[in-house]
Amino acid sequence: MGKDSNDKKISIQTQNLYELSVLLELGVTTMIATPKIIRAVADLVGTPAYLYNQKVIEEDVYDARAFERVFGEERFTLRYAMKANSLEALLRLFNNLGLHIDSSDGNEVWRAERADIELSHVLLTCQILPPQEELADYITRGMNPNAGHLDHLEQIAAAGGKDITVRINFGEGSGGTPKTTTGGYGSSFGMWHTEIPEILERSRALGLRVVRLHSHIGSGSDPQVWKRNVRIMLEHADAFPDVHTLNLGGGFKRSRWHDEKTMDMEECARDAYEVFEAYQERSGRRLRIEIEPGTYLIARGGILIGRVHHFRHKHDPDNGIDYNHTITDIGMTENARVCMYGARHHLTLVPEDDGREMTSTFVVGPACESGDALTVRKNDPNRLRRERMRTPTRGDLIVQHDTGAYCDSMAPHDYNSHGEAPAVLLKPDGELVVITYRGTREQLVQHEVKYSPTPSLAL
Amino acid sequence: MGKDSNDKKISIQTQNLYELSVLLELGVTTMIATPKIIRAVADLVGTPAYLYNQKVIEEDVYDARAFERVFGEERFTLRYAMKANSLEALLRLFNNLGLHIDSSDGNEVWRAERADIELSHVLLTCQILPPQEELADYITRGMNPNAGHLDHLEQIAAAGGKDITVRINFGEGSGGTPKTTTGGYGSSFGMWHTEIPEILERSRALGLRVVRLHSHIGSGSDPQVWKRNVRIMLEHADAFPDVHTLNLGGGFKRSRWHDEKTMDMEECARDAYEVFEAYQERSGRRLRIEIEPGTYLIARGGILIGRVHHFRHKHDPDNGIDYNHTITDIGMTENARVCMYGARHHLTLVPEDDGREMTSTFVVGPACESGDALTVRKNDPNRLRRERMRTPTRGDLIVQHDTGAYCDSMAPHDYNSHGEAPAVLLKPDGELVVITYRGTREQLVQHEVKYSPTPSLAL
Repeated sequence: MGKDSNDKKISIQTQNLYELSVLLELGVTTMIATPKIIRAVADLVGTPAYLYNQKVIEEDVYDARAFERVFGEERFTLRYAMKANSLEALLRLFNNLGLHIDSSDGNEVWRAERADIELSHVLLTCQILPPQEELADYITRGMNPNAGHLDHLEQIAAAGGKDITVRINFGEGSGGTPKTTTGGYGSSFGMWHTEIPEILERSRALGLRVVRLHSHIGSGSDPQVWKRNVRIMLEHADAFPDVHTLNLGGGFKRSRWHDEKTMDMEECARDAYEVFEAYQERSGRRLRIEIEPGTYLIARGGILIGRVHHFRHKHDPDNGIDYNHTITDIGMTENARVCMYGARHHLTLVPEDDGREMTSTFVVGPACESGDALTVRKNDPNRLRRERMRTPTRGDLIVQHDTGAYCDSMAPHDYNSHGEAPAVLLKPDGELVVITYRGTREQLVQHEVKYSPTPSLAL
Repeated sequence: MGKDSNDKKISIQTQNLYELSVLLELGVTTMIATPKIIRAVADLVGTPAYLYNQKVIEEDVYDARAFERVFGEERFTLRYAMKANSLEALLRLFNNLGLHIDSSDGNEVWRAERADIELSHVLLTCQILPPQEELADYITRGMNPNAGHLDHLEQIAAAGGKDITVRINFGEGSGGTPKTTTGGYGSSFGMWHTEIPEILERSRALGLRVVRLHSHIGSGSDPQVWKRNVRIMLEHADAFPDVHTLNLGGGFKRSRWHDEKTMDMEECARDAYEVFEAYQERSGRRLRIEIEPGTYLIARGGILIGRVHHFRHKHDPDNGIDYNHTITDIGMTENARVCMYGARHHLTLVPEDDGREMTSTFVVGPACESGDALTVRKNDPNRLRRERMRTPTRGDLIVQHDTGAYCDSMAPHDYNSHGEAPAVLLKPDGELVVITYRGTREQLVQHEVKYSPTPSLAL
């Protein structure tokens, strides 16, 4: 298992070196399933379908545990930010691997508990706390509330909270796009650092003990910003004498494209360790560290498997330009990152036959909407790019890579009445396990009330 | 009922002129519910909630029927593009008003039929046709298939199709954003106009009769492009001797912001009528016209009702800038248009008390994601704008306007495990009817399989 997370990792069980070489030739740096497995998944549950590779996820958990190897087991907690992908089987996998959870909503706490996760392993970091009765129930049974607004302090105290986390915006932000930046003046997340005196005063008055400081800078994860954030948090730790843990949030970049760089966890861990040690030297306090990655732990471990339905060609004689369109059954209803962020995900054709010529093609999804494209330009979902791939033909399978994070959880599944795609887990022993079934038509309408409005007489 | 669709329409039943003046003062051009009704909806189903005003929808149907008034009842079909909002009660309303349906997926045909809509009133316009057995069932019972790719001709013939629609891309495109443009070289929708000879030859060989031509240019609806498209379609009508109807698609702009202009349906209808008449003069063929708006018919008739949970203030002393954040329980999980397109929707605070000072504030949703903003700049979801509104305070209701189209149907409801918001219909007599219930936690996980992966021994 490689320790350099920027390595080209091949987690693959295949004797067919030809297939492997085809896939690597296409510029894909990480293959998490062989064509044989991809075909088996399509046979098992049809397309579109999500596939998760347990071994790859475990590798990425291992990489994130660079912090554990540097800080020691006692001083580190790895939380999985479950909004990235909240499927029960994956929550159970992370729980079985010893991870704790960061949840973003009362309903996520409920789902974590449903996956047999101890509430004491769950941190609730949200903009809006659950209703008081629900919050009190969770807190009584050990869940860790994170106060992100001054009002939260009263709400947590009223729900019986004692030991709390406070989320503070220290003014640092780093996002892959401004949209995913969660620090700085423009961000609504966390209490502003100038409010620290008020946080302390209110907490004291309410009988709350601040045991954990939390700061999350966004998902762009400029390592320099991340390192500055560690230092700023430590500078403020003196004001919080009961704090035993600093939670640095998530925002650890996972490369999904050859010009993106996966964050070096070991480098971050070593840097943080140095300043934590210096802080201990100065203050005598031996603080713990927590991180809560989502993307880093699950993005690479998932792919989307679809099928090509049409391959079309147009020629512009005036400009001598060719336009190819590949129409597949995977799109924005399975992965909204492309149309929402202009995110780029590699695509690989998995043809039944060998030796197809290479071509350049726009690749689109099945929705009746131009925004449903799989190939867009960097940060610009409004403009399509051409993908180099073997020439597709009707019936070919096609894979969209690195779709483990923020795809199933963030896609508008019901748009065009598609319904949610099923998910399959590839076990380390090669067995495939269906972990979610395909959404049914009946589920699309289950919340509806039969009512037939009578047109008004005025018309 | 105003016939000029760019009028400021007030569809409101209120004796409280003060409330009305407050709302209008805020720049909202169309109010579809009084504060009293908004409060009643929040009391009835909680927040967030969708509210639809039947009378407003009927007004917009009336406006779209400008074509009927110009062409005559016999020569016009108004289809509702149901992907804009597929709730059963709304489908029933459109059906009861005499509209036909444009569907984008086999599942949409199923939903239309479930709402007691005759299959002969349903056109299926999609990138990927349903499996053959399903398609054959629909076609046998009268549904109208629309061939958007050459391959579709074979598939429709194999499913027993006889009279068909063909969708052709004549090279014209107009979208509010490039993302919503559906014509031109870059678009994957419809057969390219140079393929017409092949369409004719294949259709003949397969025993298909092309009775309807379809062309849709996108949702930006530049009236000039629309008018050109009518002319181009008519130029090609000679090649299709069995065609009795031209379907001009949708793409009729509905203003959601003061700098946007609602398409003038009467102007479009009169222009189309002129060229249809000229065509009849020349060819002797008296063609019918169809349009299939989604946004135009339902966007204005819906609002989202939410609640303010936090109002925050930050001050940047270095630049003398104030940053206010209003955190509400409505966001991207109810309306993804804002973060996906940078769409602008007016917001109105509905406070319990009078006389609040005006303020400028960013308004955001509850998801643990910076992209969950309600106030973004035009076509740039990455940058927030400040909204002028009365100063919010915890507990205030807040309304996001013009959320009838592509909100409930296109939102990633389950992100952060929120679940789908309920919907209420305001009847013309003022009665409120719940038409969908709030999604439950159990529904979030109903497709999951209980499986607990054992970590591999290698780790």
